[in-house]
Amino acid sequence: MTAPAPITSLQNPQIKRLVRLRERRERERSGTILIEGARELARALHAGLAPEAVFSCPALHSPEAAALAPTLGLVTELSRAAFEKVSARENPDGLLALAPTPHPALPEPGPQAVTVVLHGLEKPGNVGAILRSADAAGAHGILVLGRGADPYGPNVIRASQGSVFALPVAVMTEADALAWLSARGFTTFACTPDAPRTYWDAPLTGRVALLLGTEHQGLPVEWRGADHALSIPMQGRGADSLNVATAAALMLYECVRQRRVQGKAI
Amino acid sequence: MTAPAPITSLQNPQIKRLVRLRERRERERSGTILIEGARELARALHAGLAPEAVFSCPALHSPEAAALAPTLGLVTELSRAAFEKVSARENPDGLLALAPTPHPALPEPGPQAVTVVLHGLEKPGNVGAILRSADAAGAHGILVLGRGADPYGPNVIRASQGSVFALPVAVMTEADALAWLSARGFTTFACTPDAPRTYWDAPLTGRVALLLGTEHQGLPVEWRGADHALSIPMQGRGADSLNVATAAALMLYECVRQRRVQGKAI
Repeated sequence: MTAPAPITSLQNPQIKRLVRLRERRERERSGTILIEGARELARALHAGLAPEAVFSCPALHSPEAAALAPTLGLVTELSRAAFEKVSARENPDGLLALAPTPHPALPEPGPQAVTVVLHGLEKPGNVGAILRSADAAGAHGILVLGRGADPYGPNVIRASQGSVFALPVAVMTEADALAWLSARGFTTFACTPDAPRTYWDAPLTGRVALLLGTEHQGLPVEWRGADHALSIPMQGRGADSLNVATAAALMLYECVRQRRVQGKAI
Repeated sequence: MTAPAPITSLQNPQIKRLVRLRERRERERSGTILIEGARELARALHAGLAPEAVFSCPALHSPEAAALAPTLGLVTELSRAAFEKVSARENPDGLLALAPTPHPALPEPGPQAVTVVLHGLEKPGNVGAILRSADAAGAHGILVLGRGADPYGPNVIRASQGSVFALPVAVMTEADALAWLSARGFTTFACTPDAPRTYWDAPLTGRVALLLGTEHQGLPVEWRGADHALSIPMQGRGADSLNVATAAALMLYECVRQRRVQGKAI
């Protein structure tokens, strides 16, 4: 028995489906996401995601992709032209999978859990960078509110380097998020440039929710209390403000630092 | 007297020159840089840079560009097609200037100066993000060593949002940088994932140089001392390491925090 011939036609229905899935609407309609890249796919598998299909182009394989591909079971081979057609990357590594959209349950938080609440962040690069930092800082999970970047979109997956699969990323309504956090006694801190209190001066131990958004006026009023607004001091001669992903990393690691000073595990 | 007609020909020598200047080699040969965008140009002007020419396309102007353009003196108007040809951006704001490559002198550092040393960093987005954070954290200056991204290239200027003009960014040889730092009593700290000492545990006050690079083996041996290696603790389930720009921001702001705890101005 020989392996089936690779798909070469750009008109092949599977190729067309993969291209359509680059659109958020199509991902939402079908409940399916694209996972491109060996590193990202390895992390999704490690998190227990079961791909419904894997597409591979050996001519494009990175060493990491070449090592992973044989372990993946049923793989459909694509020609180089076909793979480049479906890839969202400039330098694809020749691996792309389809998987059901994750709907991770948020585990019950520990007493020192740090949760990140993203409100309407639009740039996939920022969302991905925040997920990566949140994972590195040991955050408990991510709540995604509002109509920002699709956390399971290809650009967020790439920018997060797969961290989106390593910690629970839950898409919620504002009301549900607020109820979830309130019921568990989280204190919510919003990062705003003009807050009088710096992020070093706030008690960031206990259950903490860090709120990051591009606009705050749409938030429930409970999240706008002045007690809970924090700023990051800026001495800059040029910059208006820190990038939101940088601000997130600083606040996340201040949570870690304060736990460490108090001898508490995150 | 009427204004000269806009340049519409894509074969115009000025258009061709602007396109050539997107290449680093051509910028280095001519000692000229491109500054695109109203925000970036405003910061360059504020830093005292004198553009040798400004190109404008009113049809593309953002409100910020429309406000800045009339203040700029002699401006050459380009048609929309011509401007889009010379722009390096997806959504140009209709302002682009040529200026001599800056060669800022490093001012003598204060007793609490923090200097960032970039060694061979290749991604313009990372270099730009580090410049932005360094500016926000009040760093004294940036030393750029090795053949990484051109700090005055269009993508670094954009990613830094013009911060590259707000603080001194000096391109140096390793030997000159080491001599400069040693003569002034800087302590150099390198960020490496496996260092036993965390960045919270090192005394980061006094004159501090933060070394960031993609590879350390090419550095002078004095910069590789284990005393001076710092790590950022990572609890991540997915991420291999923090992005270098995130690591830079964390270390820069730890310098600020320690100065603040000790009542010292940066």
